Amino acid sequence: MSILDKQKILDRHKRTQGKIKIIPKVRLKDKEDLTEYYSPGVALPCLEIKNDHSLIKEYTNVSNLVAVITDGSAVLGLGNIGPKAAMPVMEGKCLLFSRFGQVQAIPICLDTQDTEEIIRTIQNIAPSFGGINLEDISAPRCVEIERRLKESLSIPVFHDDQHGTRIAVMAGIINVCRLYNLDITKLKVVLCGIGAAGSSIARGLKRLGVRTIYGYNKEGIITKSKYHIYDEVVKELIDGSILTQYENDCPNTLGSLLVGADIFIGVSAANLITAADISQMKRKIIFALANPNPELSIEEAEIVQCDIYATGRSDLPNQINNCLVFPGLFKGVLKYGINQIDEELMDIVAHTIAYTINPTELTRTNIIPNCFDKTVVNRIVKAIAKYAREENTK
Amino acid sequence: MSILDKQKILDRHKRTQGKIKIIPKVRLKDKEDLTEYYSPGVALPCLEIKNDHSLIKEYTNVSNLVAVITDGSAVLGLGNIGPKAAMPVMEGKCLLFSRFGQVQAIPICLDTQDTEEIIRTIQNIAPSFGGINLEDISAPRCVEIERRLKESLSIPVFHDDQHGTRIAVMAGIINVCRLYNLDITKLKVVLCGIGAAGSSIARGLKRLGVRTIYGYNKEGIITKSKYHIYDEVVKELIDGSILTQYENDCPNTLGSLLVGADIFIGVSAANLITAADISQMKRKIIFALANPNPELSIEEAEIVQCDIYATGRSDLPNQINNCLVFPGLFKGVLKYGINQIDEELMDIVAHTIAYTINPTELTRTNIIPNCFDKTVVNRIVKAIAKYAREENTK
Repeated sequence: MSILDKQKILDRHKRTQGKIKIIPKVRLKDKEDLTEYYSPGVALPCLEIKNDHSLIKEYTNVSNLVAVITDGSAVLGLGNIGPKAAMPVMEGKCLLFSRFGQVQAIPICLDTQDTEEIIRTIQNIAPSFGGINLEDISAPRCVEIERRLKESLSIPVFHDDQHGTRIAVMAGIINVCRLYNLDITKLKVVLCGIGAAGSSIARGLKRLGVRTIYGYNKEGIITKSKYHIYDEVVKELIDGSILTQYENDCPNTLGSLLVGADIFIGVSAANLITAADISQMKRKIIFALANPNPELSIEEAEIVQCDIYATGRSDLPNQINNCLVFPGLFKGVLKYGINQIDEELMDIVAHTIAYTINPTELTRTNIIPNCFDKTVVNRIVKAIAKYAREENTK
Repeated sequence: MSILDKQKILDRHKRTQGKIKIIPKVRLKDKEDLTEYYSPGVALPCLEIKNDHSLIKEYTNVSNLVAVITDGSAVLGLGNIGPKAAMPVMEGKCLLFSRFGQVQAIPICLDTQDTEEIIRTIQNIAPSFGGINLEDISAPRCVEIERRLKESLSIPVFHDDQHGTRIAVMAGIINVCRLYNLDITKLKVVLCGIGAAGSSIARGLKRLGVRTIYGYNKEGIITKSKYHIYDEVVKELIDGSILTQYENDCPNTLGSLLVGADIFIGVSAANLITAADISQMKRKIIFALANPNPELSIEEAEIVQCDIYATGRSDLPNQINNCLVFPGLFKGVLKYGINQIDEELMDIVAHTIAYTINPTELTRTNIIPNCFDKTVVNRIVKAIAKYAREENTK
């Protein structure tokens, strides 16, 4: 990025002082309006809600409002920059909620990185919102925070870094299989980075039918023999047989792990792969999702002639983008009153996104829709409506 | 209120699902916009703020945004109705912030009524806001919560039920003195209800120069001899000699306390006064602020020919209304970066509101401006600008 581009971006943020704002839904033109929308008239909807808490959805804005919550501990690729510095990203997220999903969202940046404090704080403010979108909270804390909130709150809770990425990756993999007519159960996947995103992607792929998923992180290939050094998130993947284990002759480099593999998925900025690594793969299906620098550069991807090259970048084809997921997902769950975003619903959203692309449009540089394609959100909302009907008749 | 009116009010709240909403400040039309307002461009303002936290005011919406926070423990005259039932009032307050002060505000209704939890929760979410407006939290907890937050946070904190009411009452009393050319130091004031509003009103009147303020609450006249039964709020008023003490022959009814008094101020729904009580006053200056039912009805006020009859109601003359205070106050302190709303600033705002009415316009039914009068907010903002300049040169 040039200095001029940088200045332009800073100026754009500065000119509008941020990216979202709050405005009235109603006009207050005289004392009569004041009497109806404020004291004493406002006591009437208060008493209705007091008698039936669910009426808060009818009389207030709450059910249309998502809190985008972070502690600033793992923001973009910038790391632990704290709550204030995280605010431009959170406002950006709220802008995307509005632009793509017509969902209202407000950023809440927390001045604590203590797991218990975060959980209590979110529980305490929860009555003000229709849903909670956790964002950029570092692993493994994020997994516990999300799980505990899901258990204790009666509104949908979603950690986008875990499950937004998972759903977008699932959609991409589904379409790679459609494009090449691959049997998903027979693929060998190497997943690099077993944190928030990686752990959820592994679970998602398993649910798609993938049987062979090797995990790799900064301590090398994930293996039972190193069980004691892992955090809870990795341990659970081993305990649940989500990650495949070598019986013996366990390879100890990423390169040797990739021999004969079909798919590489990278969600860790720490591990780069080389053209030599790729050339040993059976298929060259590369999801290099580290941002802003993919694990494999576009230049190298072209040299080794990847079958599929997907990244998180908006300036390259095949952008695996959470923007495809959370706007429609929240629009749907808020509209149809779904209070738990479970794995079945995630599967449905992943398939819906994938099948937004017709077979005739599916190419190696078009495995995933563009987030500006309005049909994505509409289809997700329809799919959630169907899911809600089925849940109700269960 | 008729059943038809009630249905109309409920319908109006329902039709729009509440009273405020969040919208984008900027347009996102293509991938380039996405790159600039979100990843990777958004990292630039993040890094600027990381290096200088004060830049959050320039690059985000935070400095224009007030959190209206309640625990639902003392909502209007409805009492402890909880956080969800409080939401229509809090949204209403946010609507007033926007309508009268062009200040953005968002309601946060807390699912806890524990003092320590409330304080910690607000401290934890504080980085997301430019100011905190506490609302409808019961006394005496509200006083401690506000004080502790003022000490620990570097953004303005204001408890409207205490100080908004205080400032509006002060403005009214200032104008009563202007109208009748009264020496404020010689007035005998009887203040009924020594909770959140009453305790702050007593302090405000003292600062205006009133020397004789008798306090009355559900335990009768406030007197040192009953010190042990009072909460901290009342004890502090006694310790600080804010409330006047009888040397001996302490009256034990509100009626006998009113003999020879100039001003009655009621901020407690529990104590009604009668025409007989009023007739024993030296002057009949009545601020009957209980809502929605004033301590003295308009019919009785007319029978006893009150000099001044002020209430909290918008359908009667002389509405002592917090709406005159908080929109301009927050607009000013946010604009001029004032982080503490101290007693000096409250005095300034009270005088500014009072002197918005010219001497020629001042009548016994026009002692306080109408909140739809735009000059009020503008004058408050100008007065705060002057205060800020003076603070900076101190």
